[in-house]
Amino acid sequence: MTPTLTTITLADMAAIARGGAFLGTGGGGDPTIGRLMAEHALAAHGPVPVIDVDMLDDSALVVPVAMMGAPTVMLEKLPRGDEAQVALATLERVLGRKADAVLCIEAGGLNSTIPIAVAATCRLPLVDGDGMGRAFPELQMVSMTMADIHACPMAMADEKGNAVVLNAIDNLATEKLARAITVEMGGSALIALYPMRGSEAKRAVLRGSLSLIHRIGHLIAEERTGNRHPADRLEAELSGRRLFEGRVVDVERRTEGGFARGTAQLTGLNRDDGRCLTVRFQNEFLVAETADGTPVALTPDLICLLDLETAEPITTEQVRYGFRVIVFGLPCDPSWRSPRGLDLVGPGAFGYAHAYRPLGAPA
Amino acid sequence: MTPTLTTITLADMAAIARGGAFLGTGGGGDPTIGRLMAEHALAAHGPVPVIDVDMLDDSALVVPVAMMGAPTVMLEKLPRGDEAQVALATLERVLGRKADAVLCIEAGGLNSTIPIAVAATCRLPLVDGDGMGRAFPELQMVSMTMADIHACPMAMADEKGNAVVLNAIDNLATEKLARAITVEMGGSALIALYPMRGSEAKRAVLRGSLSLIHRIGHLIAEERTGNRHPADRLEAELSGRRLFEGRVVDVERRTEGGFARGTAQLTGLNRDDGRCLTVRFQNEFLVAETADGTPVALTPDLICLLDLETAEPITTEQVRYGFRVIVFGLPCDPSWRSPRGLDLVGPGAFGYAHAYRPLGAPA
Repeated sequence: MTPTLTTITLADMAAIARGGAFLGTGGGGDPTIGRLMAEHALAAHGPVPVIDVDMLDDSALVVPVAMMGAPTVMLEKLPRGDEAQVALATLERVLGRKADAVLCIEAGGLNSTIPIAVAATCRLPLVDGDGMGRAFPELQMVSMTMADIHACPMAMADEKGNAVVLNAIDNLATEKLARAITVEMGGSALIALYPMRGSEAKRAVLRGSLSLIHRIGHLIAEERTGNRHPADRLEAELSGRRLFEGRVVDVERRTEGGFARGTAQLTGLNRDDGRCLTVRFQNEFLVAETADGTPVALTPDLICLLDLETAEPITTEQVRYGFRVIVFGLPCDPSWRSPRGLDLVGPGAFGYAHAYRPLGAPA
Repeated sequence: MTPTLTTITLADMAAIARGGAFLGTGGGGDPTIGRLMAEHALAAHGPVPVIDVDMLDDSALVVPVAMMGAPTVMLEKLPRGDEAQVALATLERVLGRKADAVLCIEAGGLNSTIPIAVAATCRLPLVDGDGMGRAFPELQMVSMTMADIHACPMAMADEKGNAVVLNAIDNLATEKLARAITVEMGGSALIALYPMRGSEAKRAVLRGSLSLIHRIGHLIAEERTGNRHPADRLEAELSGRRLFEGRVVDVERRTEGGFARGTAQLTGLNRDDGRCLTVRFQNEFLVAETADGTPVALTPDLICLLDLETAEPITTEQVRYGFRVIVFGLPCDPSWRSPRGLDLVGPGAFGYAHAYRPLGAPA
């Protein structure tokens, strides 16, 4: 049972950044930048109240804010600082009303923390939940799409001061247009989208993910303080599975079409046992398979890489030769295992031929 | 002296489409589609009043509407019909007021006629003028930029029903973002941009270009009816120069980055005289040079290709092997020859090494 988070203060940020990066399954942005932005805003404006989605008035306006783009770009093209607020303010102008609460679109080092910075600066509460329960690379890959909520109007802003408002015909068209704009904006953009009424948020949002992120971050810190490896408790408390322990022996990575795509090859720590694992990613880790191509974990289930020594989550843009890692599998939110969910975010949605099989299910 | 056009009726459309294509210098879109759209709207809604920019109230709202993209695409991806009105209506919503008049952004088969369709449908007058006095391939290449008028807010719409509003930091950033969106929209989009007050339009608009287009179209038709070649009167009345007569022997053409780029090679009709001409284009014909690379006409001066027999203007996407053509040079609007004008649309703006020399000036 995850204790409920009710307020976010400066003291919570280390746990949230780490837990966000963990559930981000390699994506969702680098935790350092987002943590700094949130800490700066919390120091200036005070704590952020965290509310359950059921506390929202049915007519309230809830707006997810996020960074969009390739995490590899975000490491070098730093945000100016106010782009997310510009995106939110732009969307508010289009809608003719102010937001009543902010929401995370996904879990991730950056996308679990930027909304905290926005909430603090705009003095708005943050809803305890998100649209993925993990991170996914594309805009339409959210629980809101399953709930027939439109991503548009959507606002985008960049660090140069450019702003764009989209009214696309559906969420896939929104993704395609927004991706082209993100690339033109230099590879990353701050966005505000899926504006929802409270009544819509109540049926669409995946609940409690901020509390869970906070809990995971704390658990990793606690275990490290006690000189225990966090993997045991993570496995027990999250119904997770340790899929592999090994060394990264090769990483092939390219930034294309606004995404960071690639493959990481791992071998067992005892080189003689011949065990190896291939992890494929597109911003997030999406497929883990053995040498003969047998999948051991498949999107939408979560594939998380942790540093073998420190249990620090490793993002797809950080992973490199020589890293010693634990590969962790976690079951996704049950809604993703529905036919509509798998259609949106199953292996086929990313061009992988594997049929989805739930984590741990017999072959 | 060009007689002033005061109303556009169905009977004027043949002349306007042809004259627009002529001043479009190979770009500005295919005249057939635009003519059909304008004729349809004029038949349904009646004639369009044409006004001098000085007739506008200083506080009036004037909005240019246009098609953006590669002309090669526009030939195959036909507009649905109402995208330009959707773009205008989207911009009006952003501005919180209705337009009082419509304007052409440039001359061209499509971009001299689509605004007529919009004006007829929305029952608005059309200003006798445009932003180029010809066609250019990029958004920032307009007299409005020289007058420090912002292209944004700018609205874009496609035939699928997607709409986008841009607020970019300057006109070059607007071009870059809009171009990426146009490519994602399938290579062409309908746009409304450079919203201006009447007072701004009075100092920015290049005046009388619709009347001139109408006159050119009529002149070509009159001379053909009289079995005279229109080139003589075009030369006399437009201060133009016949630069070359010859046959197209090679065309290299590619659609890249949302533009139709390429080169047409011409040789003299008497193959033995060894004369040849190279014409380079990016949506529009921009450079005409002899075999040794000596320029005979350079952007921003106009380079127009006419069919040798019919005097019909030839667009960059139509020109092909075997065409027998007259290459016509026309002086550009004097404002383009200023340092700021040449910076925007001189040879260097398109990556050509030639220093600008006015049409007909000694080498």
